[in-house]
Amino acid sequence: MPRHHKIRRAVEHSSLISLPSHALPTPMAMEAARLSPSLAAAAFFARRRPTNSPLLCRRIPLLRPLASASASGGDGRAVALSSSELRKRRGLSSSGAAESASGGDEKLRALRSLFALPDVSIDAYIVPSQDAHQSEFIAECFMRRAFLTGFTGSAGTAVVTKINAALWTDGRYFLQAEKELSHEWTLMRSGNHGVPTTSEWLNDVLPSGCRVGIDPFLFSFDAAEELKDAISSKNHELVLVRGMNLVDEVWGNARPKPPKAPTRVHDIKYAGIDVPSKLSFVRSHLTENGCDAVVISMLDEVAWLLNMRGSDVPHSPVFYSYLTVEVSTATLFVDSSKVSEDVLEHLQKAGVKLKPYEAIVSEVERLAEKGAKLWLDSSSVNAAIVSAFRSSCDRYMNKKGKAGRKIERKEASSDDLTTRGAGVQNGALHAVYKVSPVTLAKSVKNEAEIEGMKNSHLRDAAALAEFWCWLEEEVCKSVLLTEVQVAEKLLEFRQKQDGFIETSFDTISGYGTNGAIIHYRPTPESCSSVGSDNLFLLDSGAQYIDGTTDITRTVHFGEPSPRQKECFTRVLQGHIALDQAVFPERTPGFVLDVLARSSLWKIGLDYRHGTGHGVGAALNVHEGPQSISYRYGNLTALQKGMIVSNEPGYYEDNSFGIRIENLLLVKEVNLANSFGGISYLGFEKLTFVPIQSNLIDSSLLSPSEINWVNDYHQQVWEKVSPLLSGRSRDWLWKNTRPLFDNSP
Amino acid sequence: MPRHHKIRRAVEHSSLISLPSHALPTPMAMEAARLSPSLAAAAFFARRRPTNSPLLCRRIPLLRPLASASASGGDGRAVALSSSELRKRRGLSSSGAAESASGGDEKLRALRSLFALPDVSIDAYIVPSQDAHQSEFIAECFMRRAFLTGFTGSAGTAVVTKINAALWTDGRYFLQAEKELSHEWTLMRSGNHGVPTTSEWLNDVLPSGCRVGIDPFLFSFDAAEELKDAISSKNHELVLVRGMNLVDEVWGNARPKPPKAPTRVHDIKYAGIDVPSKLSFVRSHLTENGCDAVVISMLDEVAWLLNMRGSDVPHSPVFYSYLTVEVSTATLFVDSSKVSEDVLEHLQKAGVKLKPYEAIVSEVERLAEKGAKLWLDSSSVNAAIVSAFRSSCDRYMNKKGKAGRKIERKEASSDDLTTRGAGVQNGALHAVYKVSPVTLAKSVKNEAEIEGMKNSHLRDAAALAEFWCWLEEEVCKSVLLTEVQVAEKLLEFRQKQDGFIETSFDTISGYGTNGAIIHYRPTPESCSSVGSDNLFLLDSGAQYIDGTTDITRTVHFGEPSPRQKECFTRVLQGHIALDQAVFPERTPGFVLDVLARSSLWKIGLDYRHGTGHGVGAALNVHEGPQSISYRYGNLTALQKGMIVSNEPGYYEDNSFGIRIENLLLVKEVNLANSFGGISYLGFEKLTFVPIQSNLIDSSLLSPSEINWVNDYHQQVWEKVSPLLSGRSRDWLWKNTRPLFDNSP
Repeated sequence: MPRHHKIRRAVEHSSLISLPSHALPTPMAMEAARLSPSLAAAAFFARRRPTNSPLLCRRIPLLRPLASASASGGDGRAVALSSSELRKRRGLSSSGAAESASGGDEKLRALRSLFALPDVSIDAYIVPSQDAHQSEFIAECFMRRAFLTGFTGSAGTAVVTKINAALWTDGRYFLQAEKELSHEWTLMRSGNHGVPTTSEWLNDVLPSGCRVGIDPFLFSFDAAEELKDAISSKNHELVLVRGMNLVDEVWGNARPKPPKAPTRVHDIKYAGIDVPSKLSFVRSHLTENGCDAVVISMLDEVAWLLNMRGSDVPHSPVFYSYLTVEVSTATLFVDSSKVSEDVLEHLQKAGVKLKPYEAIVSEVERLAEKGAKLWLDSSSVNAAIVSAFRSSCDRYMNKKGKAGRKIERKEASSDDLTTRGAGVQNGALHAVYKVSPVTLAKSVKNEAEIEGMKNSHLRDAAALAEFWCWLEEEVCKSVLLTEVQVAEKLLEFRQKQDGFIETSFDTISGYGTNGAIIHYRPTPESCSSVGSDNLFLLDSGAQYIDGTTDITRTVHFGEPSPRQKECFTRVLQGHIALDQAVFPERTPGFVLDVLARSSLWKIGLDYRHGTGHGVGAALNVHEGPQSISYRYGNLTALQKGMIVSNEPGYYEDNSFGIRIENLLLVKEVNLANSFGGISYLGFEKLTFVPIQSNLIDSSLLSPSEINWVNDYHQQVWEKVSPLLSGRSRDWLWKNTRPLFDNSP
Repeated sequence: MPRHHKIRRAVEHSSLISLPSHALPTPMAMEAARLSPSLAAAAFFARRRPTNSPLLCRRIPLLRPLASASASGGDGRAVALSSSELRKRRGLSSSGAAESASGGDEKLRALRSLFALPDVSIDAYIVPSQDAHQSEFIAECFMRRAFLTGFTGSAGTAVVTKINAALWTDGRYFLQAEKELSHEWTLMRSGNHGVPTTSEWLNDVLPSGCRVGIDPFLFSFDAAEELKDAISSKNHELVLVRGMNLVDEVWGNARPKPPKAPTRVHDIKYAGIDVPSKLSFVRSHLTENGCDAVVISMLDEVAWLLNMRGSDVPHSPVFYSYLTVEVSTATLFVDSSKVSEDVLEHLQKAGVKLKPYEAIVSEVERLAEKGAKLWLDSSSVNAAIVSAFRSSCDRYMNKKGKAGRKIERKEASSDDLTTRGAGVQNGALHAVYKVSPVTLAKSVKNEAEIEGMKNSHLRDAAALAEFWCWLEEEVCKSVLLTEVQVAEKLLEFRQKQDGFIETSFDTISGYGTNGAIIHYRPTPESCSSVGSDNLFLLDSGAQYIDGTTDITRTVHFGEPSPRQKECFTRVLQGHIALDQAVFPERTPGFVLDVLARSSLWKIGLDYRHGTGHGVGAALNVHEGPQSISYRYGNLTALQKGMIVSNEPGYYEDNSFGIRIENLLLVKEVNLANSFGGISYLGFEKLTFVPIQSNLIDSSLLSPSEINWVNDYHQQVWEKVSPLLSGRSRDWLWKNTRPLFDNSP
């Protein structure tokens, strides 16, 4: 599945790229490039896609919806539900045109009444979709935008002024938002011609010199800074509203509790490297960079570093927390009720102390006061933490009389975001703004992680073989199964596998025309049945105890048209070309993207998403810093041990969709030559599920491409058949027979 | 032949790219990226090549030496000669270790004595290889660095302080420079570990606060600004020494006269678009950008815009000149003795006035004084012109009292390079700094230019067929021919073709191990004979009245080794893959580079130069803005009508070299689909010369690759055989027979 949320910066200095206007046809991409490196990278997935993202709607998923259209499972976690069910269960019923007269007004009225509070005093408030950690999947209690607006789609930003209320979302959600928003809300269709960004809109609707409020926990420092710049052209001031989230105030007691799911130790046999070693690694980076401490705020980074897992959000085995690592100590900021004795012992062994989740702000203030130099990844660490650190540094320096600033400077100036980076120049105190030291380390898998990924992929392949065997039989028997029922059955097959935990994202189960919607997600009310007249695209994945999977197959249970076969074969040729690539070390992923596309280009076809994203080992299904995309903003080199998806596709509007996705491990290849005295890298497949032969027009394939298919299927048979029996084993046998070889 | 000099900026805002340290292994590349977009692009050709270019040695040719190792042909032009002959004829005899005691000292002493002149007063002087127009090939009178140092290689920068004298050059010239430099010169081996850049060295050897002089005509404004910044860290001041070039003062009467070669009208049947139309185009851009005038200083841009050609320098049909285009007038700054009645009439018809070459400075001062807003491409327009314009603007504004600056401000401050760009903010007056409006227009060829290119390529192909037929016969008869003799004979065959003017660059004629030296240029004293035991690489080109050619073929007159065949076939596969590429409009060339490399990468091989450069139509053999390179700094999209070379290679040190080069025209391809509603582009071959079959291991080729070779050879036969007769026609027949086709 193509990665769709933001890609984080890989290497300091590596991603600042000004793109030419001709290469940035969408305002979203242009804005993103201007905003921050990581956003520029994310925007690359959107080229030629008609989105016009508002400033704050930047983390729009480009292939798969986020998890917000889901409901509480009782423990604060969200489970897959239809949006109507969701609204019912969640008290989001203010939404919907019919209900607008009653509830919608109330929430807006309540929110606006808070604007006038003495310590708030704002003219507008921005409510993004984010949590405090830039997470792809978020807990229900953080779905403030959905609560406030009634719009339950995954991507959107709400902006409320004293008079206006507007919601930005992208093309996937226009219809849904129209249904769900009350008449008091203006729907801003991002990507449509002439639709302003949130900041453009604010500059337009507010009189000059207004105060625009945000919850600083919900914006990365970089994003807040960019917002501040954008609205400063109308002399608006960005106000970091501290101490309370205004939507939470409105939500009141009805707001779901923060998730309390227990954490667990991620066994060393899967993690491969123990926590003390990982902490040592981070500390060596601290020393190299002259830093005393680092704040880790990305949830998967905390989980990876501490060999812990949780289940606070759907699809990702993470838990809400922050981590600070100092030269001799480390502190985990987490709700202690999530930490069992086992976990506590595990942490104590590694010298990791516990503090409450909320104590992170006072901790950075403490670090500032003791004069520590802090490593902050300002593309991920939120503005609340960074500005708290800066304010404390200022206070500390003022107290010491070291800074040239006046003691009597206004408190407000400590929120001055434009002084960012000044600390670096000022020397010993303050912060170093640099990508987290964990980002790259996490992406390069160790032996144990690789083994876990391989093992879990084989079990996943067995589940998929059983599933496809079952589905083929059902469709042949003309049993009417909906896209949702099919996805649920797949879940059942996966649940039978050892170590299965949950799906790694919401299954994209798209039959026929639905398959052409790259971001399609079936709902029980509206989905199609899977038949034998068209293509069926299934993109799914799982979290296992030892690994994370992500696979797409496209099949036809009847007779595919020559057009479908031609398109499928072209996609397959791209998949094969990337799979077989060999490249020198230090090659960024985007260099290889053309290999996956050129077979489609030859007949004037293309696809509007990237070709590959990073995948975590028993962690997030989407992780950075590497990617394989047609945009050139992500200069991270592919490295031995990284995992990427290989998922070219083709989508014919109102007709069908095709995607073929395997996960690949980057490995060193041993060749007869080694020009330049460097390593040459290639890929090893992790995914072993048949590619449907009746969709392949083998007359289009070269002998070596035919060999690739036959070799792959032989490997699939050898690796997966021992895990199968009966009909599914027969199915695997039938579906791994060699193609007719047309070479001489 | 791979482009080796700087690539100019393509699109404003398009090329500023910060590269990650891991992607910039050479200090040269890193420095270049830091310096300017165009340099960043140029540096990309140098990846993994061990060069450590000093700040001012930036335009190091990466594939073919420049023309400086040549001598006057009497008219101020240079013709190919060995460096020893050259020294004899040119009075460069101070060079060479044996001669150092006498002459070398004298020149340095004379130069240093000028440092103390009242209106000079400098502590160091930098002498680059450039002329005032960023030309690839320069006239003899501008070869100041060669005169001063005795080092006649094409690339190098000399820096002289009151005590020290150092010369920077790259690996191609270490041996030559050691021989040619006197003992007073320190050879700085760029690319060797620990060798500083010129500015680092100046910062090291000079006490703080010195004055470093340059001739501002020999530095682009951007380069001068960067130099100024680099030396400011030691508080050195960059002094633009006006009114005289200090080396010219030392050279005195012995200095060759500036070239006086007559110019000619480039016939409209070759130029395609008349001068008034081209001027209108430029003027529409002026209006769009709110400018009143533009200064064109690149010689090929002047020649293209005015449909004129000249022969002031070898290999390029250009003439020393500047051009200013205003909304209602245009002025050519050129030595009037070069302008015949015909040419004058041609210019008058287009409303172009003449002024002396030297009057360009007073002209920009005049424009400044009348308050004109000037379009300046500061990556190509020299610092003398830009700073003269700025000084005049300042004087004008001071006089008018419009600027907030004090009237009594020091004259020196008008040279303040750091104020660059301020004019843009200040509004109506001053300049817009933007890539020349001619750059892109010139690169997109019109119908007439394309026809001229096609026709000249066929005549060139006929000459090459005659040549290869002759050479094969001679080698088979065991006639001993040197690489230089072979190149001379090739020239003879070309000279017989209609419309031949001259070679478009110095022929690279490399047998055996010499072929592995990418920048090889044979000299009569030292070159090898061409035999039948190894590969022979021949990269050559010609200027014709109607077009410019550039072609490389590699042959073996005996029995190539399996290794040679394997490598040749891999290079050919890359050549074919690029030739056959189809890609969406707006695709930058670098996206396609991997197609030419991936067949080599598969066996751990690579080549250390770009894959393609732009080519002028009856103009410079190397032109921008497009390129096809493995570095990602040049984001210029390939456009219909552009011409690029396709020249992958492989070089095995001390063994052999392989390169296969055709020129390609970018064209629109008509496909059954047009995903995204955009155009898809592909290539049409311009070059029609056989590729030697006995070097192809056809077992490595796919059926479609074999078809490509056979189709190509069939086209070669059909297009070129009508121009041949006798033995060369027979040779062409034999060398265009189909490969054994191993498809079914």
